[in-house]
Amino acid sequence: MRHFVVLGHDAPTGADFALDNLPGGAGRLDLLARSLIAALLLSHDIREDTKLHLVLADEFTLTFAGASLRSLHPDERSAAALIRSALEHGEEPVGRVAVEPSPGIALRRAGFEHTMERLVDQGTVLPLQPDGRPVVNVEPPRDSVFVLSDHRDFTEQDREVLSTAGDEAVSVSPRALHTDQAITVAHNWLDTEGFTRY
Amino acid sequence: MRHFVVLGHDAPTGADFALDNLPGGAGRLDLLARSLIAALLLSHDIREDTKLHLVLADEFTLTFAGASLRSLHPDERSAAALIRSALEHGEEPVGRVAVEPSPGIALRRAGFEHTMERLVDQGTVLPLQPDGRPVVNVEPPRDSVFVLSDHRDFTEQDREVLSTAGDEAVSVSPRALHTDQAITVAHNWLDTEGFTRY
Repeated sequence: MRHFVVLGHDAPTGADFALDNLPGGAGRLDLLARSLIAALLLSHDIREDTKLHLVLADEFTLTFAGASLRSLHPDERSAAALIRSALEHGEEPVGRVAVEPSPGIALRRAGFEHTMERLVDQGTVLPLQPDGRPVVNVEPPRDSVFVLSDHRDFTEQDREVLSTAGDEAVSVSPRALHTDQAITVAHNWLDTEGFTRY
Repeated sequence: MRHFVVLGHDAPTGADFALDNLPGGAGRLDLLARSLIAALLLSHDIREDTKLHLVLADEFTLTFAGASLRSLHPDERSAAALIRSALEHGEEPVGRVAVEPSPGIALRRAGFEHTMERLVDQGTVLPLQPDGRPVVNVEPPRDSVFVLSDHRDFTEQDREVLSTAGDEAVSVSPRALHTDQAITVAHNWLDTEGFTRY
């Protein structure tokens, strides 16, 4: 299984935002919507072996499972609408128990630390960072938990959680990519078994 | 220089479309907008060495030059608005002469064939196709002209143009990627000098 954890530091935790102004009025939900598309969609297909976990303002985690998700379209507005619909259920989760607003979507009252505690045994933890080890020098793992930040760097607190989760930061590019672009390249690395199989 | 040519078979050639329904009401302009972002934007940066050429319904070609483009934001709606603003000038181009609706944007009354005639000497022509030669087996060229289709395959007519333009189709993935995802991986191949430099 491939997991992608994306930290939305400024992300909304409620559904009161407009789809017409995602970058300015909704805590860069545009970036999170594009990450959702990059993580789960192929051309005319969905990645059934992948889950995306959006950590929203370190308060909620919204998980999308490719295997059971319905009605995800490749445009940013649709993806943002899917996230917004899920956030309408923000009052429902009690403790760490998830609610499932619709098939393939789970909403938990859990920040980054709890989400990583849940995922650390699910695969090799691979934080994506510009100064990480070149991904081409790493053996592609069978199960992976990539961790990416949004338009901001990881905070000091994020780094503490990552240091507990172990494993080594990797870099997918010498350039500073957008979060969704980094997800696309990470998938490509795994799809090609380390750039060897096409 | 890196050129990306994207064929928008169903793309609008005028500005009379709404930004609220790009996939349904605007000939998959959502896909073209994402291609624009993938081709020209990095995190907090623009790719000055890259030009994107959107071929619209084989009638117009809209070129975006990273070196001189202003006000491209990474969200799909903004990118689509930039395309729409340029298309408001659709009546102006005479013959093959381009108009420049704003800095870094050129609009020509030229379809795929004419656009390729103009670009064929600008670099190695690399059509991206699933059954192409694995990109990892190709020496990254200094100057490149990638050619990609939208959500449809290349048409018979497209293939005739490509066979005249020469060079060999390459594949960037064993999976069928979205157009913008393929652009991201092609950039990554060049950025890393064939997955060797990080």
